Amino acid sequence: MKCIIADRPIEYDGSQISSLWAYTVYKVQEDSVVCFRGPCDVTPGHMIDLEDKLNEEKISSPDMIHFIVEHFDSTSVALAYTRQRLLSCIAGEALRDRKVFATRSGDDLYFGGEKASISIASASAVSMKIHFGINVRCDEWGSLEKAGVYDPDELMAEIGSRYAAEHDDIQRDMRKSRPLGAFS
Amino acid sequence: MKCIIADRPIEYDGSQISSLWAYTVYKVQEDSVVCFRGPCDVTPGHMIDLEDKLNEEKISSPDMIHFIVEHFDSTSVALAYTRQRLLSCIAGEALRDRKVFATRSGDDLYFGGEKASISIASASAVSMKIHFGINVRCDEWGSLEKAGVYDPDELMAEIGSRYAAEHDDIQRDMRKSRPLGAFS
Amino acid sequence: MKCIIADRPIEYDGSQISSLWAYTVYKVQEDSVVCFRGPCDVTPGHMIDLEDKLNEEKISSPDMIHFIVEHFDSTSVALAYTRQRLLSCIAGEALRDRKVFATRSGDDLYFGGEKASISIASASAVSMKIHFGINVRCDEWGSLEKAGVYDPDELMAEIGSRYAAEHDDIQRDMRKSRPLGAFS
Amino acid sequence: MKCIIADRPIEYDGSQISSLWAYTVYKVQEDSVVCFRGPCDVTPGHMIDLEDKLNEEKISSPDMIHFIVEHFDSTSVALAYTRQRLLSCIAGEALRDRKVFATRSGDDLYFGGEKASISIASASAVSMKIHFGINVRCDEWGSLEKAGVYDPDELMAEIGSRYAAEHDDIQRDMRKSRPLGAFS
Amino acid sequence: MKCIIADRPIEYDGSQISSLWAYTVYKVQEDSVVCFRGPCDVTPGHMIDLEDKLNEEKISSPDMIHFIVEHFDSTSVALAYTRQRLLSCIAGEALRDRKVFATRSGDDLYFGGEKASISIASASAVSMKIHFGINVRCDEWGSLEKAGVYDPDELMAEIGSRYAAEHDDIQRDMRKSRPLGAFS
Amino acid sequence: MKCIIADRPIEYDGSQISSLWAYTVYKVQEDSVVCFRGPCDVTPGHMIDLEDKLNEEKISSPDMIHFIVEHFDSTSVALAYTRQRLLSCIAGEALRDRKVFATRSGDDLYFGGEKASISIASASAVSMKIHFGINVRCDEWGSLEKAGVYDPDELMAEIGSRYAAEHDDIQRDMRKSRPLGAFS
Repeated sequence: MKCIIADRPIEYDGSQISSLWAYTVYKVQEDSVVCFRGPCDVTPGHMIDLEDKLNEEKISSPDMIHFIVEHFDSTSVALAYTRQRLLSCIAGEALRDRKVFATRSGDDLYFGGEKASISIASASAVSMKIHFGINVRCDEWGSLEKAGVYDPDELMAEIGSRYAAEHDDIQRDMRKSRPLGAFS
Repeated sequence: MKCIIADRPIEYDGSQISSLWAYTVYKVQEDSVVCFRGPCDVTPGHMIDLEDKLNEEKISSPDMIHFIVEHFDSTSVALAYTRQRLLSCIAGEALRDRKVFATRSGDDLYFGGEKASISIASASAVSMKIHFGINVRCDEWGSLEKAGVYDPDELMAEIGSRYAAEHDDIQRDMRKSRPLGAFS
Repeated sequence: MKCIIADRPIEYDGSQISSLWAYTVYKVQEDSVVCFRGPCDVTPGHMIDLEDKLNEEKISSPDMIHFIVEHFDSTSVALAYTRQRLLSCIAGEALRDRKVFATRSGDDLYFGGEKASISIASASAVSMKIHFGINVRCDEWGSLEKAGVYDPDELMAEIGSRYAAEHDDIQRDMRKSRPLGAFS
Repeated sequence: MKCIIADRPIEYDGSQISSLWAYTVYKVQEDSVVCFRGPCDVTPGHMIDLEDKLNEEKISSPDMIHFIVEHFDSTSVALAYTRQRLLSCIAGEALRDRKVFATRSGDDLYFGGEKASISIASASAVSMKIHFGINVRCDEWGSLEKAGVYDPDELMAEIGSRYAAEHDDIQRDMRKSRPLGAFS
Repeated sequence: MKCIIADRPIEYDGSQISSLWAYTVYKVQEDSVVCFRGPCDVTPGHMIDLEDKLNEEKISSPDMIHFIVEHFDSTSVALAYTRQRLLSCIAGEALRDRKVFATRSGDDLYFGGEKASISIASASAVSMKIHFGINVRCDEWGSLEKAGVYDPDELMAEIGSRYAAEHDDIQRDMRKSRPLGAFS
Repeated sequence: MKCIIADRPIEYDGSQISSLWAYTVYKVQEDSVVCFRGPCDVTPGHMIDLEDKLNEEKISSPDMIHFIVEHFDSTSVALAYTRQRLLSCIAGEALRDRKVFATRSGDDLYFGGEKASISIASASAVSMKIHFGINVRCDEWGSLEKAGVYDPDELMAEIGSRYAAEHDDIQRDMRKSRPLGAFS
């Protein structure tokens, strides 16, 4: 699995959650996690979480680190959301290694009780995708800045590469486990 | 998903990883995580991780907290291992809430650099299963005791119920996400 | 699985067959069967059955009981259609308990030789869906009225709750069956 | 899908539920439903329903009509059980056409309140299978004889051919349904 | 699986890759391979291969033999591409039987070093599809004409019927193989 | 995907078709094709093709080149057999490049009308596997020797590496194809 670090800021407007965005921009033909920094302003037409859409929630932030994950091995939404949770845990672990203690609730990270992330997962007929974003700075919500993380780009690269390594590790573990029998 | 806390100690001998063990013992007909405490002594015939089997590793411990997870929604080994990683993360989070800072590497938890857990995941034709165990006490390896956790039973119940709640939360999230289109 | 009985009439125009309709209207985050009464007038743009579309069939009725089923556990169209047949059988059984003897042919119910139902099943990348409707009254085709059923709302609730119960029962049976071996 | 009517009595001892039994006996290389008549005496080693096994239930009957269904298009146990329910409904419909009004509860048929059938479904890594049997005569339970059905062989052939036809019909319906979009 | 030979020329404009095209035109309700002859001029809106779209490649040819394959047994893109490769091999074999020695590289056939074919595979939520086309004549690229094949219609029918026969043969082989155990 | 060339002869006795054989012998934790040379003598207990078993066919040969393929991305037997056919085609292409014109029929290769290969595919709950073997020399059947191939080891390495390369190529193609819509 490939971890790509964007060399320029990208605004997350929701179009990046579509299948094959990473191929279109980076020509990557592997499963991938693309990491970039930039503002967030999701237009209603790109809202995948119907809860947000129905509540007409504004999904925006002036500065975030973003992760766009795409897997082509399965289009199971259950697997997409389980991978999303794992990505969220990995972000929490990378923060903890920087002495920032985030609380995770489902796919959300909280810093000092303030929600600091947004995320969604879903699938098309060809791939599953995850978007996960953490506020770098934000007045209304929690942010890395408030939490004392001053190297968001480094953190971003760390989370992305850990997710890719975790995936590769899972792929190896899958290939040494015997099938199970039934209890009797 | 049902979280069952065993009311008596059970020795983990590897037979519990077989499909339908939970049904056989508890008559549970839901996806389940069964939590129990007891020693661990896996006989070679029950070793699912071929690496252990080939290395003739001794998988034993005098006292552990154990989690036996079974899902029937899919028999994908990739999903089984992703769920195993998530369970491992959840254990790390529950420990952190008790001020114990474990390091996770794949499916393993380390306390102060000492490996303190064992785990395996796999599937039969009817279900996927995970075993995850954490040493309560152990001379050679890391343990909850050495890490200063003196309520292993309470911790066990906490991890089990968090995993079940996480699963239910994922099931709900799956049911509010729109399908994806392709980037263009 | 949740059975929802609409508290007001709804016109079935074909838009309800889309994924996540039930979430949008009822915020339900479980597999669901939504039962409602109302006319039927499917616009060509919402026709899922290409046979109807190509034949420019008019799918309309002044008064029907409708069932909108959505499952998120799989997107298999084979499973969607097998579940549709089962729903059709369950409707036939509920009618029989009211001394109305319908004949089932595939997904269609006939009262006294007159076709009295319409149905379709399909899938998106996130869920499978079924629409099944039975005429309450209708000049050209069979109807509950002609067949002597004067409690269509009660019948509707009965069919919906039986389908949901059947699904839950299947889910339990799945969790007590051992995997099979090969004949030798 | 092929419907095979055995030309001689066969005792159902549970071995027929294994994958590829139909191939071994009839060389059939299609999905199939094999129909035969004979006694039933399932040895504990062949019990697939763990509930029966744990309760040490005696699964036996002096004379039954049996259906052994095998599909290779999927190994989903959820689909296997949905197909089992459909087979059970089809049996109920065929009986009704003979003026015998059976009640169906899950996979069981009752004649006059007496259980008259046994059934199981499961999967191996290569196929899904269903066994469904109805008592022809039986002192302790319901039977076709008590219900006034004196042509069990003809009924058996009717149920088997209807199930095969239903499957073929589903396969055709699957091939004219457009994919679904999301509600918006 | 049905092999359909079109009785008139059809221009391949990319719309034929959509799911259910064969049903719409031929009312076929089986898996199918539709073979036709005609020019090729794919509009960008119908380009499924993003590489072509991004490169603004012109996909056109004055005269080709075309194969449109549709399977409804699975929507796995991995299986779609494996079947595409097999179709490409089968075309190579049919050519060889006519003493034309094409070289295959992935899904492409080369005659004397000149690329002579185009192909794509993908899936919707209801089916998988393949388009495979071989130039009959073409100035810029390789073609059957240059290679000395003067019976393109006969070749087309041969390739189509061989692919359908191969599929049926695979379906039979699937139904006589025992499930595997684990090495020990 | 990894191509492994065994550095010593191995007798194919059928045990190599079991899941995880490659891991056990080579510690490989990727999808793999293991190529080796040696005699073939399959014991009935290891016969996966029931046709052979029922016919009590003797599957033996004094000297073959063997390919053991294992994929963990899916346990679909349909995909396993499609990949088997592709491997068979690739072997035919490699032979043709050596001016040996084999005829392929299903999974079999014929040299001058004499069957020269054996093959089987199947799946366990954790992986799919293929065995494909070509006679190097053989009195009763076709062989590479009779066909004039005097570098069986080189041919073997060529076929193995081509299969692995083809798989990697398919994996790349899967990651640039847009999902399909429906024809309208």
